[in-house]
Amino acid sequence: MDINEKINELLENSEFIKYMEIEFTRLDEEEAVAKIPFKSKFLNAYGSVHGGLLYAIADTVAGAQACMSGSLCTTVDGAMNYFEPAVNTEYIYCIAKRVRCGKHLVNVKVEIKDDDGKLLDDGSFNYFRITQKS
Amino acid sequence: MDINEKINELLENSEFIKYMEIEFTRLDEEEAVAKIPFKSKFLNAYGSVHGGLLYAIADTVAGAQACMSGSLCTTVDGAMNYFEPAVNTEYIYCIAKRVRCGKHLVNVKVEIKDDDGKLLDDGSFNYFRITQKS
Amino acid sequence: MDINEKINELLENSEFIKYMEIEFTRLDEEEAVAKIPFKSKFLNAYGSVHGGLLYAIADTVAGAQACMSGSLCTTVDGAMNYFEPAVNTEYIYCIAKRVRCGKHLVNVKVEIKDDDGKLLDDGSFNYFRITQKS
Amino acid sequence: MDINEKINELLENSEFIKYMEIEFTRLDEEEAVAKIPFKSKFLNAYGSVHGGLLYAIADTVAGAQACMSGSLCTTVDGAMNYFEPAVNTEYIYCIAKRVRCGKHLVNVKVEIKDDDGKLLDDGSFNYFRITQKS
Repeated sequence: MDINEKINELLENSEFIKYMEIEFTRLDEEEAVAKIPFKSKFLNAYGSVHGGLLYAIADTVAGAQACMSGSLCTTVDGAMNYFEPAVNTEYIYCIAKRVRCGKHLVNVKVEIKDDDGKLLDDGSFNYFRITQKS
Repeated sequence: MDINEKINELLENSEFIKYMEIEFTRLDEEEAVAKIPFKSKFLNAYGSVHGGLLYAIADTVAGAQACMSGSLCTTVDGAMNYFEPAVNTEYIYCIAKRVRCGKHLVNVKVEIKDDDGKLLDDGSFNYFRITQKS
Repeated sequence: MDINEKINELLENSEFIKYMEIEFTRLDEEEAVAKIPFKSKFLNAYGSVHGGLLYAIADTVAGAQACMSGSLCTTVDGAMNYFEPAVNTEYIYCIAKRVRCGKHLVNVKVEIKDDDGKLLDDGSFNYFRITQKS
Repeated sequence: MDINEKINELLENSEFIKYMEIEFTRLDEEEAVAKIPFKSKFLNAYGSVHGGLLYAIADTVAGAQACMSGSLCTTVDGAMNYFEPAVNTEYIYCIAKRVRCGKHLVNVKVEIKDDDGKLLDDGSFNYFRITQKS
């Protein structure tokens, strides 16, 4: 099984991804993109999408992108900046791009956008590449 | 309505907190503590609790603690370090302590632990205090 | 005195900027760029430019860029990712771009590059806008 | 040469540490502590110690502490929160404690304090352990 099949299998087997309703629309060497629907169960007490959920989708999409480096990856650390509340949008989009791929460490940047393409938040994630066991 | 009542109302009204099954066990000036059960729907593809969920609980607990400063708060940014996978535990515990409370900004540190009290992850969150409208 | 004059005065009066030999080559609404020379006094024990110095230049350049928003700014927090050692280069370049300008908070991203334009490190800085006193 | 001798040699050979006037007062398995004098050349335009310098000392002290794990270490990433301006103090103190020591990664937390022991800033640094070549 090659790495791409393995990643797809992992994504399909992740109960958390299903529970968070994260839907991947792109996953390749260049970029990973996913979206979640704006639903009341995802909202914080102020009526916007919960910042913790935005991070969860970001880590998921960035992690999948990191794995496209050819190794399974575990998260070393992640950081999110919150700019604008996620409101008045049908979906929340997450776009992840790899900035660096070292021998052991991978860095992926993430942008969170709304239906209009407005930047709501951004983040940076570091992953450790674990040897792929096929 | 005082700030404590308001916080409790906000926590009770947060659909995301219910969806994430976050249960607060302490919330006062000193500390905020909450736990989530170890359930398969919260796991990543490797069989441990998803890092995004751990951040989500951390942000929720730290945010509630920040609000105990007397102002409602929005997240400026958050960062998590992942040390050990969350496995073989009935609950995941999140302990939040306020490190700084300025006029506009609050910093709260978080530790994630398992049933045995082992440190699994830690994090740092900055909040902006918005004027309380009673 | 307008904000631009004030920023220039602040930069010229900063003894730290002189001590660090930080030389600005661009400072406008779009971007701030500065460079430092590769000198032995700036090196760590491994022979590459010290990561702390790289952060210092990044915070300085990002902070100047943040002030171009029209307010003096103080650093809320800063974070740097280190990708490649800074070696075999005459200068180290720092390019700062504003990603977000809110009422109270500004976020600026930084890239550190060598003579060949290779990305060595990147960073993210949050600033708090303090009311301009003219 | 054992790791302790090697660290001491590295610290003594670091021109940057001398240039920043960083003086170690403790370095062992438990903790690393260093101080710098409050001097005008270290100040920002507002008259307090430059945040970049505070990070530089933090990274230096945390890095030395990380090396006490038995491996030389390179910085993966670092993050600082700024709480209070460093003013009216003879020295700035930096206290570093190791929070986690994994096979490949080490996390060290830092606190910056003034003469009165007041917390001014804090930070978190991740290091990658490189195999020690004796």
